[in-house]
Amino acid sequence: MGKCNMRAFVMAEIGETDIIEKERPEPGPMDAILKPTKGLICTSDTHTVHGAIGEREDLTLGHEIVGVVDEVGGEVTDFEPGDRVVVGAITPDWNSEAAQAGHPSQSNQALGGWKFANVKDGTFAEYVHVNDADGNLAHIPDGVTDHEAAYTTDMMSTGFRGAENADIPMGGTVAVFAQGPVGLMATKGAVLQGAGEIIAVETVPERQELAREYGADHVVDFADEDAVEAIMELTDGKGVDSAIEALGADQTFQDAIKVTKPGGTVSNVGYHGDGEFRHVPREEWGVGMAEISIVTDLCPGGRLRLKRLLRLLDQGVVDPTKMTTHEFDFEDIEEAFWLMDGKEDNVIKPLVNFE
Amino acid sequence: MGKCNMRAFVMAEIGETDIIEKERPEPGPMDAILKPTKGLICTSDTHTVHGAIGEREDLTLGHEIVGVVDEVGGEVTDFEPGDRVVVGAITPDWNSEAAQAGHPSQSNQALGGWKFANVKDGTFAEYVHVNDADGNLAHIPDGVTDHEAAYTTDMMSTGFRGAENADIPMGGTVAVFAQGPVGLMATKGAVLQGAGEIIAVETVPERQELAREYGADHVVDFADEDAVEAIMELTDGKGVDSAIEALGADQTFQDAIKVTKPGGTVSNVGYHGDGEFRHVPREEWGVGMAEISIVTDLCPGGRLRLKRLLRLLDQGVVDPTKMTTHEFDFEDIEEAFWLMDGKEDNVIKPLVNFE
Amino acid sequence: MGKCNMRAFVMAEIGETDIIEKERPEPGPMDAILKPTKGLICTSDTHTVHGAIGEREDLTLGHEIVGVVDEVGGEVTDFEPGDRVVVGAITPDWNSEAAQAGHPSQSNQALGGWKFANVKDGTFAEYVHVNDADGNLAHIPDGVTDHEAAYTTDMMSTGFRGAENADIPMGGTVAVFAQGPVGLMATKGAVLQGAGEIIAVETVPERQELAREYGADHVVDFADEDAVEAIMELTDGKGVDSAIEALGADQTFQDAIKVTKPGGTVSNVGYHGDGEFRHVPREEWGVGMAEISIVTDLCPGGRLRLKRLLRLLDQGVVDPTKMTTHEFDFEDIEEAFWLMDGKEDNVIKPLVNFE
Amino acid sequence: MGKCNMRAFVMAEIGETDIIEKERPEPGPMDAILKPTKGLICTSDTHTVHGAIGEREDLTLGHEIVGVVDEVGGEVTDFEPGDRVVVGAITPDWNSEAAQAGHPSQSNQALGGWKFANVKDGTFAEYVHVNDADGNLAHIPDGVTDHEAAYTTDMMSTGFRGAENADIPMGGTVAVFAQGPVGLMATKGAVLQGAGEIIAVETVPERQELAREYGADHVVDFADEDAVEAIMELTDGKGVDSAIEALGADQTFQDAIKVTKPGGTVSNVGYHGDGEFRHVPREEWGVGMAEISIVTDLCPGGRLRLKRLLRLLDQGVVDPTKMTTHEFDFEDIEEAFWLMDGKEDNVIKPLVNFE
Repeated sequence: MGKCNMRAFVMAEIGETDIIEKERPEPGPMDAILKPTKGLICTSDTHTVHGAIGEREDLTLGHEIVGVVDEVGGEVTDFEPGDRVVVGAITPDWNSEAAQAGHPSQSNQALGGWKFANVKDGTFAEYVHVNDADGNLAHIPDGVTDHEAAYTTDMMSTGFRGAENADIPMGGTVAVFAQGPVGLMATKGAVLQGAGEIIAVETVPERQELAREYGADHVVDFADEDAVEAIMELTDGKGVDSAIEALGADQTFQDAIKVTKPGGTVSNVGYHGDGEFRHVPREEWGVGMAEISIVTDLCPGGRLRLKRLLRLLDQGVVDPTKMTTHEFDFEDIEEAFWLMDGKEDNVIKPLVNFE
Repeated sequence: MGKCNMRAFVMAEIGETDIIEKERPEPGPMDAILKPTKGLICTSDTHTVHGAIGEREDLTLGHEIVGVVDEVGGEVTDFEPGDRVVVGAITPDWNSEAAQAGHPSQSNQALGGWKFANVKDGTFAEYVHVNDADGNLAHIPDGVTDHEAAYTTDMMSTGFRGAENADIPMGGTVAVFAQGPVGLMATKGAVLQGAGEIIAVETVPERQELAREYGADHVVDFADEDAVEAIMELTDGKGVDSAIEALGADQTFQDAIKVTKPGGTVSNVGYHGDGEFRHVPREEWGVGMAEISIVTDLCPGGRLRLKRLLRLLDQGVVDPTKMTTHEFDFEDIEEAFWLMDGKEDNVIKPLVNFE
Repeated sequence: MGKCNMRAFVMAEIGETDIIEKERPEPGPMDAILKPTKGLICTSDTHTVHGAIGEREDLTLGHEIVGVVDEVGGEVTDFEPGDRVVVGAITPDWNSEAAQAGHPSQSNQALGGWKFANVKDGTFAEYVHVNDADGNLAHIPDGVTDHEAAYTTDMMSTGFRGAENADIPMGGTVAVFAQGPVGLMATKGAVLQGAGEIIAVETVPERQELAREYGADHVVDFADEDAVEAIMELTDGKGVDSAIEALGADQTFQDAIKVTKPGGTVSNVGYHGDGEFRHVPREEWGVGMAEISIVTDLCPGGRLRLKRLLRLLDQGVVDPTKMTTHEFDFEDIEEAFWLMDGKEDNVIKPLVNFE
Repeated sequence: MGKCNMRAFVMAEIGETDIIEKERPEPGPMDAILKPTKGLICTSDTHTVHGAIGEREDLTLGHEIVGVVDEVGGEVTDFEPGDRVVVGAITPDWNSEAAQAGHPSQSNQALGGWKFANVKDGTFAEYVHVNDADGNLAHIPDGVTDHEAAYTTDMMSTGFRGAENADIPMGGTVAVFAQGPVGLMATKGAVLQGAGEIIAVETVPERQELAREYGADHVVDFADEDAVEAIMELTDGKGVDSAIEALGADQTFQDAIKVTKPGGTVSNVGYHGDGEFRHVPREEWGVGMAEISIVTDLCPGGRLRLKRLLRLLDQGVVDPTKMTTHEFDFEDIEEAFWLMDGKEDNVIKPLVNFE
């Protein structure tokens, strides 16, 4: 397969996007080239375009896609052209020391598994390069649509991990701060970790409703009441066993600590994009002695994770497509992107069709 | 045994201590009364006298003693008058929900297992009341002196827990911030958790020397160099697997996060006594996604914990008495206390003889 | 309240049951006396009557009841006469060393938390003695019926623990051997631990149907096919991430090991009542090197566990009453007992009404 | 570098060894070729020659070597010819599903990380092929000799893992069954996990002495007394918190279960080479309800593991060379092998010099 051109949706510079022509990527011996079929726009791409990770020039955006294998490197054993696959938003280097330590998303450096639209071109292009195809792709079962599968790349993987890390006791109490797509999947994840009572914090009515559908027993509207007070009241003044921060703001980070009982866990999956510090409220943190743990994670990637999430879709355990509020063709992807950027029209997730 | 009076070393009010007469306490059905033989002065008592937990009137101070059982309640089965015992600084309510959840030191409320010299009279008196004797006392083996055993009550239990919580990999790298008695025991604890390389941060020469004796491979003197830079250099820019905060200051808390590698653990055992917030440095924390865990603990108490620590003393695994720099009789306890308060004369731990 | 007589359903001797008069028990300072309202018959009582734990004389049977507090000891703080409560089948000594080590059900000796109808009188009497009332009782929320709450004492607590111990990955595969009431709750528990695919092994049609209702994706009928072969085929020859043994037989124990993949977990909650050995199949166990863990548990008890299970009932997460196939008044309890003993009339659980 | 011949020490067929000429291996893009400098003979090679893993023809033996990099594949980034390195006995496929699940030694199939002298040629040859060089090699620090480093490949990694898996509480009690080189390193590993009291079981005087040097507090000689009785007596009838099986025999497996207290852990690192079953003694196992866990492991491999073990050598935490009882040149390797096979002359480990 010779070199050829392709169209790619890029961050031209800070604040600017474009659709341009790029060279189709070539695979190394362990790699694959995909042709996307469906993709989802993620808020973190909008942060990137606004400069969160610094200046970039014509960086292809996107990290949530499914597609078809177009080409594989000579050492790839489990995938071949024509295979219908999903690739994780995070594509770790599986032999790195961090991966060997159980932290593949931190391959070689902090957040080092996050390559797409960060240290290499992202997925919103006609062809996409995937490092370590055997490690980072998964076949999509017949019973799962491309649309559904696209949610395993990031939203399900990240949101569910927020719940997995929260150390939720069977029948325990959980608060989930923010019900964007990650928070909604954290709410569903809490159900799948045996939570006995789930309190979602959210003010947008459409998201509140989805939160209930995904399993929230209570919704606290922080525009109507103080979230901390409301949660303490719902828990008879005791606080929750587990709090999940799914926004990335100082306020929700502090609130999550404040509502967590001694011995409980604060699980952060929000991306904290600005400010010099996050603030730990000293007293509610029990002066550093209340046995409250604060844990964090970056979206888990990898074939095994994807296979397990696809199995949940195949068995009908969760329907993430309820979060898809809009749909666009690839040629209109800029429109989708700026809709997401402005959080207009009650958008939750815009779907992009590549064919 | 009738009511009678006894002498007690008390916090008369904020800033004032005294030795006064008090009524000897009476045991409930599960309780015991001890007659102390040896005790150790703890810095946290000095914080208390300076008002850290609010106003108190004639509160007996102290929480680190060994002694002899003087009387037991009718339901106590495993101890009787004359037994040589140690009581933990923390005396949990073992049937509380927090204890059932695996957090006995948080019995009924944050830090609720901390009763001595907090919500009830402490241990620096001629007689000491112990709640739940079967749960909170331990017999001292013949091979262990009272002096040694006194270190199990808090310094060994807290310092070692700092290391246990730090999730140190076999052969991993550890930084321990501050080498007071808790930090020194955290350093020794890191050895006992299989650390491959231990970096102690301390400026006082006597403590630096003890740190090396207890197992530190490097000592960083923060008065001579930037602790974070020094630790990053010692670890080839990678940071440590585990950092232990054994001071309770904002600076060391921040530094501990800064030197911890992605996927690593910050274990806090320092008591953070002032300030509205502790500050999490956002970037070094990996914008909330670097899989760095921040865990905290209050000194573990209880018979089982004490028995295991006494076993380590009995087998000669650790000699905590190297930390005893001064010795006083009970009548001179005020002198011992204010020496500790001023950290004068290179004091590390002052021992108090009750007989 | 003076001494008085009461009726109790007892094991008169091996093989014989009776309803006799006994003295009403008296509470110690930490204890309570309950008056049962609803109870469930458990197969383990039938084992007891057949001699599984040796000879007993007029031992009151039963360990699954809810009731009303009739009297409390002087040190009990959180319960008072008239309170509607549930008591766990297992009533640990919370200050024992085993409880302090995180194994309350092993208080003081192996299975030492199992007191009812073992080392003291059980619950099938007009009055029931409960040790450590604050630690071992829980108030029943208004939204939960006595009938529902009775399932928290053992079936939910044991079955769910089978799933909690199985280390089920989010989206992982699980096999549950036997779908008696514990196995059925293990199946539901697997759903609540995020299982992606659940294979239940059972031959009785009514139990197969309930298994599907509680979340089994496949049912393997071991009367029709070899269970190991069927499970290996369903998992493409890979085996499951987690296997739960909920019967207590050598065959199912061996099969559970055989179907578990390298790195997986076998979680045993079956009571293995006979034979000198359980047999670990050496090759399928990976010659002791395949990183398969075999873990076991006795029903967890305690106020916190009960509260959390009651919360799941209150939120409607599970309906255990589907397992109630028969209902009897206390005067007919012998009939209920022998029905359970013979597993007649497709019985799953017989409910006993005390009033 | 063209093809050329080299000498290799092989299993010619079951029961027969030889030194023959073979073609020097070639590296794939991720691989490396090493030239060994030092090696150690392992008992498992003798099992192999006796047929434990079936018939092989001219399979090169050996899996414990250090050496110098001779050649690397085009995708290798962190190693180059001339580097002084160690390679693990186990060389996982780091992108396999098992590795992603945290079980790299089970890559692709049970024990799949064990490639040397099993599914490919081993290390006792003039040139050795290493799969995934970046993932499976580690540079040897200047302060560590080749002789020392050779022990990280298997003996230290396996023995220490036996202790790491044993869930030893700080100050807990441990029994280690058999004090061959793996058992001796398990004993040292228990020290490095904070054990309070270590009981080694062994009958050979030289091994008993080394056990004490590595940290055993007691040695039980099973030729003189019943090991189970002796251990129960040493633990006041309570049993140990953790038992490590480092032999691979049914008797020691049963004994390990028998001496483990309720709630304790049996950690198996012995290779169970024969028999249809291992036998779990039903009663001492607590009829499947005493919360005793039985866990197993295959030697961990990988760059990170090796680096951490090398760090322990570099800091002088352990001296494994005390186990080297004999030394041979490569031309005499058959003599070394059959000495090990017969356990003659009180051999513990024979060292092989390649240059």
